[in-house]
Amino acid sequence: MTNIAKGLEGVLFTETKLTFINGTEGILTHLGIPIQEWAENSTFEELSLALLDGKLPTASELAAFDADLRANRAVPAELLDIIKAYPKGIHPMQALRTAVSHLALYDKQAEDTSDTARRAISVRLIAQMSTLIAAINRTQQGEEPVAPRADLTHAGNFLYMLKGTEPTPEQSRLFDIALVLHVDHGMNASTFTAIATASTLSDQYSTAVSAIGALKGPLHGGANEAVMDMLDEIGTPDRAADFINAKLDAKEKVMGVGHRVYKYFDPRSRVLRDYAAHVAEKEGKSHYYQILEVIEKTVVDRLSSKGIYPNVDFYSGTVYSDLGIQKEYFTPIFALARISGWCASVNEYERDNRLLRPDAVYSGAEGAHYIQIQDRK
Amino acid sequence: MTNIAKGLEGVLFTETKLTFINGTEGILTHLGIPIQEWAENSTFEELSLALLDGKLPTASELAAFDADLRANRAVPAELLDIIKAYPKGIHPMQALRTAVSHLALYDKQAEDTSDTARRAISVRLIAQMSTLIAAINRTQQGEEPVAPRADLTHAGNFLYMLKGTEPTPEQSRLFDIALVLHVDHGMNASTFTAIATASTLSDQYSTAVSAIGALKGPLHGGANEAVMDMLDEIGTPDRAADFINAKLDAKEKVMGVGHRVYKYFDPRSRVLRDYAAHVAEKEGKSHYYQILEVIEKTVVDRLSSKGIYPNVDFYSGTVYSDLGIQKEYFTPIFALARISGWCASVNEYERDNRLLRPDAVYSGAEGAHYIQIQDRK
Repeated sequence: MTNIAKGLEGVLFTETKLTFINGTEGILTHLGIPIQEWAENSTFEELSLALLDGKLPTASELAAFDADLRANRAVPAELLDIIKAYPKGIHPMQALRTAVSHLALYDKQAEDTSDTARRAISVRLIAQMSTLIAAINRTQQGEEPVAPRADLTHAGNFLYMLKGTEPTPEQSRLFDIALVLHVDHGMNASTFTAIATASTLSDQYSTAVSAIGALKGPLHGGANEAVMDMLDEIGTPDRAADFINAKLDAKEKVMGVGHRVYKYFDPRSRVLRDYAAHVAEKEGKSHYYQILEVIEKTVVDRLSSKGIYPNVDFYSGTVYSDLGIQKEYFTPIFALARISGWCASVNEYERDNRLLRPDAVYSGAEGAHYIQIQDRK
Repeated sequence: MTNIAKGLEGVLFTETKLTFINGTEGILTHLGIPIQEWAENSTFEELSLALLDGKLPTASELAAFDADLRANRAVPAELLDIIKAYPKGIHPMQALRTAVSHLALYDKQAEDTSDTARRAISVRLIAQMSTLIAAINRTQQGEEPVAPRADLTHAGNFLYMLKGTEPTPEQSRLFDIALVLHVDHGMNASTFTAIATASTLSDQYSTAVSAIGALKGPLHGGANEAVMDMLDEIGTPDRAADFINAKLDAKEKVMGVGHRVYKYFDPRSRVLRDYAAHVAEKEGKSHYYQILEVIEKTVVDRLSSKGIYPNVDFYSGTVYSDLGIQKEYFTPIFALARISGWCASVNEYERDNRLLRPDAVYSGAEGAHYIQIQDRK
């Protein structure tokens, strides 16, 4: 009997120094530093740079990287015109995949696959992904894109380009934390797809485009959108406990609960929950937040003994929604954060590249011959 | 010591009934039928349909599929205008990846990931890939795209759209055979990348876009272009033997010779060699063909005892070049053929989908903590 590693689960295909996950104990580290410490102390910019360079940056390295990001936020005006002409009502991830692919056509360095070039293109991808997502969101609603501002943080500038108004420092910081929590997560399916693409020595844009395509699938990036669908279905906080209990009694899946990797509380969800609670205390509890609190209590009471807890998607949907972001844009925002993880993982893999070429077990016909079409039955 | 399956070589991750390869004996079959029989008797259209449906089609099934392909050749006029506006001098695969991604924005069915929808989108992708490649080739040279004709075969129509003049029956047939030989080749890196993307239940366009990105890499799709670079470097037939002998004496790699999978003659290269020889006998030997003959003799004399033979890229470059195709378009033409294999493989995998999520060995820092930036050295 041939042994098939379905889903490649448990198959180790490379080494990494970037991210470590221990699902049983609920541990996630980047460069050995727990995600909680990154969320508390760091920023999206710093974590992105730390993963690209494999070390905590010095103050001057971080300042240079941040300046580089800010200087690279604008995308070609022709591309914005093309994005404006995208048909309306399209899936934002189809649009993002197309726009990022298109961006390559304007980059004279696109075909350079040296380590230096991949690093430089990574900076532009990180900076411009944000501008593209905001432009897609606005133009799909018939609004003009908002030009990026160089005086705002990456998180703050994104919210500004989305809404056209400057976010509060608390909103920027909450969104920045959400980005930090999503930057990297080991060999998830989109990072793996990016690496598979890079393994043929393809260019950096191709790797990002492949990853966006993989992230788009509902088994990967769409989970927090599904949580919001559930919250909308529930409607009001007083209906939440009955809804969840009925689901659990029927042994149905509750969106945003449990994780393939974490058999203990997802460390990212704890951070986001605590910060969301902090904001809720200060600014008042939102409608979604009130529903979420009830669900969380119900789920933890009934399932925590089985190692099933709310995951990060459970909280991020509410946070994004409270920041005024439409749920269709939650997956693009996942890409906004994860682009740094994709680039860092690809660049690390490319330093010791090996073409990915697994095999399949052939279980089809043997010894067949071509039959002329008139003789077929 | 942890066991790392570098490149996933030898790792079996799924079953397939489509393609079987035995590299040691030089065997390649589709649905159990040897590639030689497909090349001799079949067409690109028939092999595409056979792989999509997992069986040899009846005459009426093939007629319906062929009519469907012909009816779907045109792409939206807006997209052609956008392709015309692509910057000049870009890599054709960057353009193709972008154009195929863009095509999704006009397809109302793009988000439907049912088996029926994937099948229907596959037909459109197969039909329109051809139109997009021809349009990119022409517009990059400042020429107008040529509209597809419904009265020509898939191969004949592509050559027509490329040149604006109808190819001879021999040219169409030779190109058709080259397409047949490239439709599928098991779990190569681009097919695997397509499957990795599909494994998140992402849409059919995303899988094709990812595959194009992977095929683009020089370790995968760029080999026949490299063969042509070598022929150009050699220049004339009388210099070929010395050039190759010098390479082999220096233990340098000769482009188009040897294959990771085949340790015996690549069965596809035999078919293409024989057909190219047939055409050469009839129409006279081209410049490239004469160089190729000398290289083949030198390589076979010196290396066949080691199981190293010319591979399919060795002959396809010359065939394409003799058909008037620029070498920068050899990889897009690989995609033109392989789109059928990508779609058939994705559709087969999706009928028993499992998210691909292998793992990496963590070899980085442990127990580290965040250091405030002013305290870093």
